Amino acid sequence: MHSLSIRAAIHISAVFAIYLSLAMLIPAAVDLFYGNEDWKVFAFCAFFLGGLSLAVALATQGRPPPANTRFGFLLVNMLWITMAVAGAIPLLATPSMDLSLADAIFESVSGITTTGGTVINGLDNAPPGLLLWRSLLNYMGGLGVIALGLFLLPFLNIGGITYFRIESSDIADRPFERLATFTMSLIVIYTVLVAACALIYVAFGMQIFDAINHAMSTLATGGFSTHDTSFARYGDNPAILWTGSAFMFIGGLPFSIMILFAVRGRVDALGDPQIKVFLGYCVVFAVAVAIYLRVSTGVPFFYALTHSTFNFMSIITTTGFASDDYTKWGPFAVACIFVATFLGACSGSTSGGIKAYRFLILFELLANGVRRLVYPNTIHPVRYGDRSVPDGMQRAVVLFIASFFMIWMIGTLLLSATGLDLVTALTGALACITNVGPGLGDIVGPAGNYSSLPDTAKWILSVLMLLGRLEILVVLVIFSPAFWSR
Amino acid sequence: MHSLSIRAAIHISAVFAIYLSLAMLIPAAVDLFYGNEDWKVFAFCAFFLGGLSLAVALATQGRPPPANTRFGFLLVNMLWITMAVAGAIPLLATPSMDLSLADAIFESVSGITTTGGTVINGLDNAPPGLLLWRSLLNYMGGLGVIALGLFLLPFLNIGGITYFRIESSDIADRPFERLATFTMSLIVIYTVLVAACALIYVAFGMQIFDAINHAMSTLATGGFSTHDTSFARYGDNPAILWTGSAFMFIGGLPFSIMILFAVRGRVDALGDPQIKVFLGYCVVFAVAVAIYLRVSTGVPFFYALTHSTFNFMSIITTTGFASDDYTKWGPFAVACIFVATFLGACSGSTSGGIKAYRFLILFELLANGVRRLVYPNTIHPVRYGDRSVPDGMQRAVVLFIASFFMIWMIGTLLLSATGLDLVTALTGALACITNVGPGLGDIVGPAGNYSSLPDTAKWILSVLMLLGRLEILVVLVIFSPAFWSR
Repeated sequence: MHSLSIRAAIHISAVFAIYLSLAMLIPAAVDLFYGNEDWKVFAFCAFFLGGLSLAVALATQGRPPPANTRFGFLLVNMLWITMAVAGAIPLLATPSMDLSLADAIFESVSGITTTGGTVINGLDNAPPGLLLWRSLLNYMGGLGVIALGLFLLPFLNIGGITYFRIESSDIADRPFERLATFTMSLIVIYTVLVAACALIYVAFGMQIFDAINHAMSTLATGGFSTHDTSFARYGDNPAILWTGSAFMFIGGLPFSIMILFAVRGRVDALGDPQIKVFLGYCVVFAVAVAIYLRVSTGVPFFYALTHSTFNFMSIITTTGFASDDYTKWGPFAVACIFVATFLGACSGSTSGGIKAYRFLILFELLANGVRRLVYPNTIHPVRYGDRSVPDGMQRAVVLFIASFFMIWMIGTLLLSATGLDLVTALTGALACITNVGPGLGDIVGPAGNYSSLPDTAKWILSVLMLLGRLEILVVLVIFSPAFWSR
Repeated sequence: MHSLSIRAAIHISAVFAIYLSLAMLIPAAVDLFYGNEDWKVFAFCAFFLGGLSLAVALATQGRPPPANTRFGFLLVNMLWITMAVAGAIPLLATPSMDLSLADAIFESVSGITTTGGTVINGLDNAPPGLLLWRSLLNYMGGLGVIALGLFLLPFLNIGGITYFRIESSDIADRPFERLATFTMSLIVIYTVLVAACALIYVAFGMQIFDAINHAMSTLATGGFSTHDTSFARYGDNPAILWTGSAFMFIGGLPFSIMILFAVRGRVDALGDPQIKVFLGYCVVFAVAVAIYLRVSTGVPFFYALTHSTFNFMSIITTTGFASDDYTKWGPFAVACIFVATFLGACSGSTSGGIKAYRFLILFELLANGVRRLVYPNTIHPVRYGDRSVPDGMQRAVVLFIASFFMIWMIGTLLLSATGLDLVTALTGALACITNVGPGLGDIVGPAGNYSSLPDTAKWILSVLMLLGRLEILVVLVIFSPAFWSR
């Protein structure tokens, strides 16, 4: 790693931080509009971060960065850390909340990684600017992770599978024009979806401010809410819950396919095998638990299905909204929620977790392996839909899952050392590494939050959220000796 | 699959069952010696099973079986099911225990898979013959799994790594003579170790009958005890606990290496890398939790180390003895126990779990993968010690771990559907699939047992124990369409 690369990465991060400081003017304006004194905090933070970033950007100007994979890894890590720190500044500075440094970092990281776990009690009385800032963190984090999956990860040989690739024939051949077109399509489609979601929420009776915030965290599969009770306050409004379910599902779809579908009208793009798997396990879990609820509690089936669908869609897309305390739904429902926490939606979406395409490839590997035990001399290709999966992709899937479980176990051990009980440590670590948000148990479950945890635990969980968001390997690379050798 | 193969597999299983019926005469003799009426039960079961097996064996005589892998898979599954059923017959027949069919099968499967979880309350008052039968199930199951790992699995391309192979130069080249020599060495070494363990237990104050039983379940890393309180009754006898720890460790070593070491004097065989890894994580967990106990509870360090070592050795070698209710040791200790449940000892031992060599290979794969992210065009071989691991072995490791987690999750869901809470379902399924025995929580934890579970749960757990014992894939193969195609 050359010092030139580090300098260039700092420069780009500083320029990025200038944009983030501009974003702080939005909550400042909103607080000013609502007459809340907090607008000064956001305005001050914007000037502070903007000024500092400008100074750093100017000081690190220089030759263009080397275009190699190592620089790519370094830059991704630095951009996300920049976002985490920038997001935390107003949360730490505001006098309307009494957050420690660990609290502010946790909340910010939870926002930008679209995890959605919170350390804030009393959201209902929080200033509107602060609530909007949290939703913006979800929104920007969602955009960030889609951009990461579309533009950067494929070049770093990590994660990401796109059945229907955006071929060069679909757009102009010149890379920068291509990048610009894509980024614009991405931002436009994403924002149109958020607006549509907000409008439908309002149409079904949600307050406008709540609707805008919830729409941002719905599409980002983020999960931040403007209320301590999350979607439980809409528990008797099936129209809002089904709207939420539908837009969380959309947030779990591969964005490249949405671009192809929306911009090029390519309906066939929806045939990506991972979408079938994702839809498949959503339906199986939602229906199974709805039947279980109907039988065990006697609630009407439609009511059971509404809540079951909403909460499983929330967990599987790694959003983290809750329409009810599902830990009280009985042991089978709780075990289903636990298993669903691993799943994740599609590659190239805003969701986290293991993701449908990895299960698809893993299942193929398993079926193949068993076949080869019976017929040791035959070789079947590992398939994804009607294509064969290259060796490197198979390796990446296995590596991700192995490191996922390793990091989960290490996280559980560290959290338990801070005094957390097994269920809290195990499911808290899992819910953060998968970017789901709520874990199980009374403390970090859907009826609780992360506020009562010790600061050390919040730091550990913040690291787990970032690891999960960056597909683990992007972070691990930074700690390998090979990365730092010249 | 030809009907000829099925017929041959039934024939061999029936012959095997005749030997098992002879083994029932041992507890019969012991009960007769102690003047317990239960001797009639064992004598009757021996004649019943012996006669039935003889009839089946005679009826299925015929041409020798085809020597192919499919027949191997079929035979292994049938032999273990035969052992499970034969083991359950006296448990179901005895009037001194009131066991359901599910209870008897669970107890028998727990015995032969050397899991050691029990459904029997009141072991202290159980007839000696029955206690000995349980220990014999551990003993025979231990021998069975070593034989499986030495003679059969390597030919089925599953599991098993032997760093120091027993080369043809070590023994005669003729395969049958080789098999006979090996089997004899195996039985002799295993039995000598059991005798040595029993003698030392007695020397340190254990009753002779208890010592013989505990020695059998120690070396088999089985975990059946003659007392409801397991090794907690020796909680104040550090000599007995350290003896147990030492022999459990020996039970976790690869048996092929013990044969090479004992018969050929090959000290270098102890350099197998998996032994270092196994020893390494035993020491790390035992010492870390001993320090934690010393600091958090103030007990003397030697006392803490004695109990920490005993219980971690028990969990890591998948024995399942407990010298204390370690679920009361505090959250960090509980999390360590949970993580230790996955580990397992060495390949070719009597232990279960994921096993040290798989972690070693997985870690190599991970390090390699991360290196290749930085330098995509370099290829490093995956190493086990100073040898490179063939592709097939890498694939088998990944397949095992993937199917392990899949089966664990399915087991958890099924158990929760019978009404078990998450911790009981999750850790019960884990403790059975790893053949450890005790899970966590009040029900299936070290202070409880499996007696209060619904029958359905006992059936599910019995299947999980067998799956774990047969390295999962040996059973999964039977359910693949390829297996049954002609």
